[in-house]
Amino acid sequence: MINAAIVGMGRWGQTLVNSIAEGSHVIRFVAGTTRTPSKVKKYASENGIRLHETYEDVIKDDEVDAVVLASPHSSHFGQIIAAADAGKHVFCEKPFCLTGNQASTALSALEVNSLKVGIGHNRRFSPNALKLKRMIEFGELGDMIQIEGNFSANMAGYAGEWRDSRAESPAGGMTSLGIHAVDMFVNLFGRVSSVDAVSRKVALPFDIDDATGVLMDFEGGQVGYLGTVAATGQLWQVRAFGTKGWGSIYGHDRFDAVKIDGTHETETWDGYEYPGILTIREQLECFAGACEGDDPYPVTPDQILHATRILDAVIKSSETGARCTVD
Amino acid sequence: MINAAIVGMGRWGQTLVNSIAEGSHVIRFVAGTTRTPSKVKKYASENGIRLHETYEDVIKDDEVDAVVLASPHSSHFGQIIAAADAGKHVFCEKPFCLTGNQASTALSALEVNSLKVGIGHNRRFSPNALKLKRMIEFGELGDMIQIEGNFSANMAGYAGEWRDSRAESPAGGMTSLGIHAVDMFVNLFGRVSSVDAVSRKVALPFDIDDATGVLMDFEGGQVGYLGTVAATGQLWQVRAFGTKGWGSIYGHDRFDAVKIDGTHETETWDGYEYPGILTIREQLECFAGACEGDDPYPVTPDQILHATRILDAVIKSSETGARCTVD
Repeated sequence: MINAAIVGMGRWGQTLVNSIAEGSHVIRFVAGTTRTPSKVKKYASENGIRLHETYEDVIKDDEVDAVVLASPHSSHFGQIIAAADAGKHVFCEKPFCLTGNQASTALSALEVNSLKVGIGHNRRFSPNALKLKRMIEFGELGDMIQIEGNFSANMAGYAGEWRDSRAESPAGGMTSLGIHAVDMFVNLFGRVSSVDAVSRKVALPFDIDDATGVLMDFEGGQVGYLGTVAATGQLWQVRAFGTKGWGSIYGHDRFDAVKIDGTHETETWDGYEYPGILTIREQLECFAGACEGDDPYPVTPDQILHATRILDAVIKSSETGARCTVD
Repeated sequence: MINAAIVGMGRWGQTLVNSIAEGSHVIRFVAGTTRTPSKVKKYASENGIRLHETYEDVIKDDEVDAVVLASPHSSHFGQIIAAADAGKHVFCEKPFCLTGNQASTALSALEVNSLKVGIGHNRRFSPNALKLKRMIEFGELGDMIQIEGNFSANMAGYAGEWRDSRAESPAGGMTSLGIHAVDMFVNLFGRVSSVDAVSRKVALPFDIDDATGVLMDFEGGQVGYLGTVAATGQLWQVRAFGTKGWGSIYGHDRFDAVKIDGTHETETWDGYEYPGILTIREQLECFAGACEGDDPYPVTPDQILHATRILDAVIKSSETGARCTVD
């Protein structure tokens, strides 16, 4: 059993805690902290969470085996380094860090201390994503040619949260939303060699970009496109095109495929609607299992680093207007 | 009543003829020609089509008011100029021409002779496209931010046709498939200012590109993405994102929308499945009506020219690797 601390107890931090509120056989939340602890006193008490005034107090807590970071993107790096020094495993919400170099340093700090790392790409655990990955691996879609993904939401609806500042959200929806598609692309198509991004503010009232589009080249020669709109209705879709047909994830709970012979396939699953509580619980349990020596977490440290380097390149490309190689 | 000649009587030319096989009150096919007339002798006779040996014979035919071009892309330009000189109206399959300068010259030749022009963007007539356009015009999706479209098919299945040569299909699926998305983007979001394209051959056995992705900047500041995969299962989708939600065309017969308040809307129509016979008939009747002085054809000459110039820029960008302005 892993004793975890929740760091950042806003909307998403509470979603993580709630995902195992009915109890888990491998992980439980015993401690936590947030920017203004007084705001969550009642919630913490109801959920058996010992509330600390500061993050420093959390990592000094001997009962805590692992920290779960749902804090502002820009604080992840320092918090991971401090957790590594204190001997705590780290489960981090995406993006892992805001630069590839930070991610490299943070992953090394965990590794030298023999600590495990997990990342909040819960969409890897969705049944439709597992199905699409299986179809690609088994060659059911033929040779892969192109991949397209879009993750969009109405961040304007959360105006006033930390995510609405350019420092936390360079390239608009990329850090909060698009990074999920980056991970799914790497999961399904492998490494990206270069990106060419456009990102700008078209209609949002506060200063982050709402229109972002990225062309990608994969090391295998395939073409990718990732879109994220930070001020619209919610959408999560990834479609992979191969010589025998295409397959598509839509939301957490729908899968569609069309083969070149004209056959259509649609499959849906119950219980997986947004915000994907089942996948959130499953990722936390998988992380806890990895901490206890079971199977490794499915997003490898190399993939976490690669995704952060892709994010680096997207931000740089959107600022310079030039195609950027991924280091 | 307009008397038309069908030029090019392969798979698509016959689809055009078949779309009004039950009779129309404004247009009928009375003549036709194709590269090897002997191959379609029986079909022509069954459909009351006087078969000519050459295109020159078609435009000398006094009974013919208009030519309908379903011929190879590269022959459109010469055929339009000859039709204009002979005083025949022109309905042309897409792409109108393979360069913007050809399109400009061809459109001028028709205009100075007071002749009408139509183009085979039948997808403008689909009920889901009409619905999406109406929603955008009425502000139901708010201010527009981004648009994404993909038209893909298995051109490998038609290997041996003229479309499988690089001369007829520069930038892979762009001329046969993607040009429909270009027209829909211009229809919904207005003029494009620049494009940034990647196009390459990943898996096809013959020499055209199968992987093509294009980022677009609109004059209004919005971002666009167009994808076309020339060797996969069939797909036609265009999704427009605005501040109040997004709306999506899927095939000819399905519409989806998700608003920022979380409401979903889905609408489907009967009788509009691929190849969209109803929309093909409607576009031909609309063209015939325009020839007889009724409402103008919905794709204006300016839009036909602009779409061809976008195609120019996509081809140039995919060859140079640089973003290209649209003249």
